[in-house]
Parts: sequence; structure tokens; C-alpha cells
Amino acid sequence: MRFDLGLRCGHLLTMKDGRGDVLRDAFVGVSGGTIVEVGPFRPERERECREYYNLSSQIVLPGLINGHTHLAMSLFRGFEDDVPFHEWLFKRIFPVEAELVDEAFVQTGVELSALECIRFGTTFVNDMYFFSNTSVEVLERAGLRARVAWPFMDFPLPDEKRLGADAIQSRSRRFREFFKKLESHPRIAAALGPHAPYTCSDETLLLVKALSEESGAPIHMHVAETAQEVADSLTRYGKTPVQRLRDLGLLSSRFQAAHAVHLREEDRFILRDSGAGIIYNPDSNMKLGSGAADLPAARKLGIPAALGTDGAASNNDLSLFGAMDLGTKLQKSSHHDNTAMVALDALNLATIEGARALGLDHEIGSIEPGKKADLISIRTDYPHLQPLHSVLSQLVYSCQGLEVDTVICGGRTLLERGEFKTLDAPEIYRKADLLRDRLRDYLARTQSV
Amino acid sequence: MRFDLGLRCGHLLTMKDGRGDVLRDAFVGVSGGTIVEVGPFRPERERECREYYNLSSQIVLPGLINGHTHLAMSLFRGFEDDVPFHEWLFKRIFPVEAELVDEAFVQTGVELSALECIRFGTTFVNDMYFFSNTSVEVLERAGLRARVAWPFMDFPLPDEKRLGADAIQSRSRRFREFFKKLESHPRIAAALGPHAPYTCSDETLLLVKALSEESGAPIHMHVAETAQEVADSLTRYGKTPVQRLRDLGLLSSRFQAAHAVHLREEDRFILRDSGAGIIYNPDSNMKLGSGAADLPAARKLGIPAALGTDGAASNNDLSLFGAMDLGTKLQKSSHHDNTAMVALDALNLATIEGARALGLDHEIGSIEPGKKADLISIRTDYPHLQPLHSVLSQLVYSCQGLEVDTVICGGRTLLERGEFKTLDAPEIYRKADLLRDRLRDYLARTQSV
Repeated sequence: MRFDLGLRCGHLLTMKDGRGDVLRDAFVGVSGGTIVEVGPFRPERERECREYYNLSSQIVLPGLINGHTHLAMSLFRGFEDDVPFHEWLFKRIFPVEAELVDEAFVQTGVELSALECIRFGTTFVNDMYFFSNTSVEVLERAGLRARVAWPFMDFPLPDEKRLGADAIQSRSRRFREFFKKLESHPRIAAALGPHAPYTCSDETLLLVKALSEESGAPIHMHVAETAQEVADSLTRYGKTPVQRLRDLGLLSSRFQAAHAVHLREEDRFILRDSGAGIIYNPDSNMKLGSGAADLPAARKLGIPAALGTDGAASNNDLSLFGAMDLGTKLQKSSHHDNTAMVALDALNLATIEGARALGLDHEIGSIEPGKKADLISIRTDYPHLQPLHSVLSQLVYSCQGLEVDTVICGGRTLLERGEFKTLDAPEIYRKADLLRDRLRDYLARTQSV
Repeated sequence: MRFDLGLRCGHLLTMKDGRGDVLRDAFVGVSGGTIVEVGPFRPERERECREYYNLSSQIVLPGLINGHTHLAMSLFRGFEDDVPFHEWLFKRIFPVEAELVDEAFVQTGVELSALECIRFGTTFVNDMYFFSNTSVEVLERAGLRARVAWPFMDFPLPDEKRLGADAIQSRSRRFREFFKKLESHPRIAAALGPHAPYTCSDETLLLVKALSEESGAPIHMHVAETAQEVADSLTRYGKTPVQRLRDLGLLSSRFQAAHAVHLREEDRFILRDSGAGIIYNPDSNMKLGSGAADLPAARKLGIPAALGTDGAASNNDLSLFGAMDLGTKLQKSSHHDNTAMVALDALNLATIEGARALGLDHEIGSIEPGKKADLISIRTDYPHLQPLHSVLSQLVYSCQGLEVDTVICGGRTLLERGEFKTLDAPEIYRKADLLRDRLRDYLARTQSV
């Protein structure tokens, strides 16, 4: 057979060169997990494919890229929402994480999120949480492509508590082992995840820098998420978070700044000159009241941007279709200009430009020969997707996520006609229910005192 | 049989008194289109119902209320999006409407939107467009509950063109006929729809006022949507739009101001004192770059608010689940306070408070004995709705609309397990395609000159 897999596509949005061209009645051929042909459909193609999907009434586009998330936190979805932010974070989420987050929690949380990513057409996730080895095990089974950031903060992390006094001292060794294990993995890679400027001392950040230079691993970090963070940094260091990171030597094309909401003009020039990328998280920034990142200002300078959902606790879902819609509307609204960000910009963030921001555009983000076969298809036979004037508008402003029909990652089918192929959803829901009850019991016990 | 229809509800959100209480394993009994029992489920209930739905794994809530929309405009969904606002409205939408909007267009547009409303759990629509008799005919067939506003502007409307010179003179008579026809309709009522302060002279508005006083019909109008509108009104009349409407005597508890984005503090007091309601349209306001209404300021004064989607061309969908999520996040973001608007507020706007803003809270908006049986159910067996910590959070921040399973309006089933019961979706999509081609051809012809 000439192709392991072939797709006949009613509309094909390749995102090649970020242009948003749409091909009608096209064919995508896949061999060995890689795209080998993109062109017009011809009837003989069907016989040349071992596996073949007729998606002639659907829209096919690159698998979406989630630039910033904490997968395991889906178990906190709707947990103590709408409580004032500081109370929520410091009195609910942090204490519960310290007490209850363990391998079993992370396993179920990542399984649940992997289901959600697949259901909503996300094939790549840039994750950051605790118990990274557990996350990798689940993502491996789920069949997703991912980069998993090994966490760094000044204080002992949930996974380090049982390691005792030398936990922090052994971080370099444990990161190196994690990195080495994934070095030749076809889909999952390691990153360094210093949590944020306000939870990492200079010493912690310099360690991260050394490990990144030694391994080549990228650095994924929350930066300038709130006005408070910037004000505190100015008070403590006399520098914005971005200035401080530059002075410590952390910024480079291997660095990705999640959020980047509160940037000064000088911060943008620093990021641009360093080659770093930013990750825009509109749902989270709006839900937590953090503010609106000025995305056009950053992109105009040439800083590449990805799109993220953040964790489900501050969103409350992992749909990049939702994030594309909201993220575009937020820019139109905050700039009082309906052209400040347009549908094609959003699709770029979620595909090829997002890949570039993460240093992955040689592998993913568009449908062209030589790229990984990460592809999704969208059913259009819903009232809200009719009539079809514009594929771009429909994907960004009308699609919700549940219209995703088939999801392919590295040539393997993860979702087929809406059915999960790699994970057992009912069993995962059952485990998530048990952990929800555990969270509630803990909260009732500790808050009633 | 004791009940025409009975529902066993896993979770029942009644929205009684706007409190957001959730009953577990509850029963709702319906007779003659009206809710007659709400209480705990008992096994014998199943035998007492002519028709019975076991929704024991679902969430049941009141049918959602769309406070402001232009149903027929779904045919413009994605049509020339992202073109600068004034060019879009004046050079694309208005000319095309003037040339191509006729009964056939409105019929298909309203059919398509009726499908979408039903699919997304909306059972009441407050519509405003042209060819009102055609809209009523479709909504009647669809089985939805609605109020249809008869349009008024200074210039001849698409439906008036063929009526010739006396079209504007005969408006009062034609409105009276429309009103009379619907006076005893069980589900559909007439309203007056003066388009906006900038398209209606004092003379037109005084006519609308007289017709409202004579008939008791409510008035549904765009008010203070953009900063430009307010500035122009100050220049031309020396008054804000709200001051002008007050001085003309239009404001009362029968008046609903759609958008109300740019209000001064005094405008809010005027609206409050008049008893008028406002309709919040976050998707449209963001997509068109109009600004963020200060909803908490209005509601704190006691002005009741409904939630609207506006037309699909400026959204681009009619999902009130999307509007609840976005509308809540927009307030959190614009107030830099994640408690500025919470999930329960959004549900209130889309149900009982929305009904109050429209003067309909004696009939709809909550699930209690004596109210119309307008009910919807939500499937929760999706990854993004697991685990269930909070029904309110899940409905507002995670639901998209496609999770709606069953929709009942006035005791009649419009959607059953995701299947349409009153309209023929494929046939409507086919007609929408033909009209899309007509729009495109017209645009190609006129823009190429």
C-alpha cells in the first residue's frame, strides 16, 4: 500500500505558511506517522490506503496545540469557583494540592484531561504540574503529543515530600533522568517548568538555566500574569519579571512565557530580542480577573504566540475552539476595534504560529508533506455551522469543540466518529467521581474547624 | 393519567426565586403545557405519566431565554466577518439586506435559527427583524415561545418597499393587525421594535409610544450600543439616548433596552425609575468592539437584566451557554475582580431575571407549579463536564450548548435525545446553502464594479 492512512477532505485548511488557504475536495496521505501527500482528491487514492476516511462533508485542519495547561487540575473543575481569587488559590487550591495530590490523583486528572483534549481536537499539550512521570505514562497511553515540564519552586513540591530532606538537592539528578528517558520518545519530550518569578528565587532560576543549557530542554514558566506580580517584582528586585529573567540569562528561543499579560513596552523588546515565545490564555485571564494581554502589540514586534487554556479550574474547559473565539473577541473588545485580531490570527496561534512559539514548527502546526500526521476533522451538519460562508469564521466564532469528529495524532486514530479509541471514558469518570468525593470530604473537614 | 408528561431529573435546578438551589433525584410533572408538580421522585410517578423521560443522569433546568436576537440573520453567519465595522455594516450587510431580504430569506433564516435555538436549549426568543408575519409562521411550526418585534425606522423597510408610497403611513394599521392576530396565541406575542435612537426620529418614536400605550405591547429597542451613538445623540439632541427616550415618554416597565453598553450613572437612574429592563449581549459587544456594559452597576440599582446573543452575524452563534460563560468572564475581566459576576448571576440572566426584564416572570424563567412547562436537560457524560463539583459552574463555565439532550416547550418535546422533533434539518440546510450562494453572487457582482 502506498499510504498507511488516507483522508478525503471536503474542506482542507492546511495552515501552510499561516495563510489560511482552504482546499476543496482534497486528499492527505500518511505513511509511518508522517504526512507524505497533500493535494487534490482522486478516486484511485482510496485503493492506495490501508486505512481510509471519507471526510468529504467535513473540514480537516491541523491538530490544535495547547500552549499552556495543567492537565491534572481538571479534577478541580468547578471546585470553589467564584470565591475571591486569593482565598481560592491560597486557602482552597494550594492546601488541597499539598494534602491530596499524589500519583493516583495526577493519573486520573491527566486521563480525564486527555479525553477532553482528544474530544476537542487538541493533539499537542504543553503541560506543567507535579508527578511528571505519571503524566507522561498517561499521555503515552492516550496517544497524544506533549511536552511535560518538570516543576521547580523554592519549596518542596507534592512529589518531593516523601523524598525527605534531600529532595531539593536531588532535583537536577531527577530532571536529568526524566529528560534522558524521553530523549528519543517519538511524541513526548521534557521541559523545565520553573513555576513563576514569585515562587522561584534567583538560585532556583539559575539552576534551571544551567539544566536548560546542558540539555537543550525548553523552559515553560508563568510570567507577568497579574499586575500584583509585576508590582511585587519591582519592589523586591527593582525590575519587572521580564527584566529579571533577562538579567539572570533565562531568556532565549527556548523560553516560553505563559500569560505575559502585564508587559511594559520595554519587556516586549526584551522578549523579542531574546527569541522567546509567549502563550496567550484568554479564558483564564478573564475568569481570574487578571487583565487582557495586548497580543497585537507583541505579535507586531515579531514575538510568536501560542494559545493556551490554562488548567480546567480557571477556564473551565480545555477547548481551544472556545479559546480561539474568546481570545479574538477579547482583543477586539479591549482595543475597541473589530480588526484588532481576526479569525485567521486565532487559527495561527492554535496551529503553526503556536508551534513556532514552542520551537516545534518543523514538526507540527500545519498539514504539509514531512510534518507529523496530527489532523482533526469537524462535522458541519449542525445548525450553528450552517450556512458555510467562511471556513475560518466558522472554526473560530461558531465551533465549540464537540463538533470534532475524528482525531489523528502521529498517524494513529485517537477519536473516530466521536468515539474514543485509546482510553476508557466511563472508567475514568468513575475514578474522577471518587477523587471529587475525597476533595469535598477534605474541604468539609478542614473548613468546619 | 395524572400527568401528560413527567421527568425524572438527576439534578434539578429550578431557579425559583433566583436562588440556584439544586434538587437531587427530583420529579417534574406537567399537565396541559403547565408545570403542576415539582418534588422528590417516587417510583410510582412513572406509571402516572402519559409520556415519561428518565433523565436520572442529567441536569434539568428552565428553558433558556434569549433576550435579543435577529433570527433571520443566521444566513449572514461568517459573511464578511472581520471587515472594519462601518464597512461591514454599511457596505455589506445593509445593501445586501435591502436587495435580497424577502419572505423566503426570512423563512429560511428563522428556520435555521429555530433549529439552533432548540439544539442549544433556548425555548424563548425575543426577536427583531423584518417580515414579522413570516417569522411568526416559522416559530409557530418550530414550537418555540417568542415575542416578535414589528420593526420601525424612519426609512422604508425591506418589507415595505413593494407597498409603495403609503407604506410608512400604513404602519399603525399593519402593526395593529399583527398584534390582534397574536393576542390570544398561547406562545407567540407581538412587540414594537423601533430599531435604534439613531434610525428613529422623534415622530417615529412618538408613534411607537402611542401604539404601545394603546395595545400594551412592549417596546424592544437597541439603546446606547456604541460610544459613537451616544456622542451623536449629544450633538444632535443635547441628550443621551436614554434621556431622549425618557423625555419622549417611551420608558416604562414595558421597555427593554438591548445592549445598554454606554450608560452614564444618570442614565441608570432613569432606567431604574422607569421600570425598564436591559439586555446584555456580551458576544456581540466584544466581537464588534463596542465595549463592555457595566452590568453589576445596573443590577445593583435594581434594573433587571436579560441575556441576548444578538444576531448570528455578530456572535457567531445563538448559544446562551456561550453567552453565559463569556458574559461572566467579561465582567470579571473588565472589573479586575473575579467576583464581579458569578455563575449564578449568569443563570439568573438567562432564566428568571431575564424573564422579569421582559415582563414574563409570571409565565416562564423557573420550574415551579403554575409556570409554563419550558424545560431542558443536559447530558453530563462528557469529559469536560466531569467531575461534577458544582452544577452552576458546570452549566456556565463548561457547557457549550451541544450537551443539551431534550428540550420541552409548553409541554411539547422539540428535541429528544438530540433529535429534532418539529423541523426538518437537512432540508433547511439545503435551502440555506442556496441563499448563501445568492448572497455571494450578489456580492461578487456588486463589489467587482
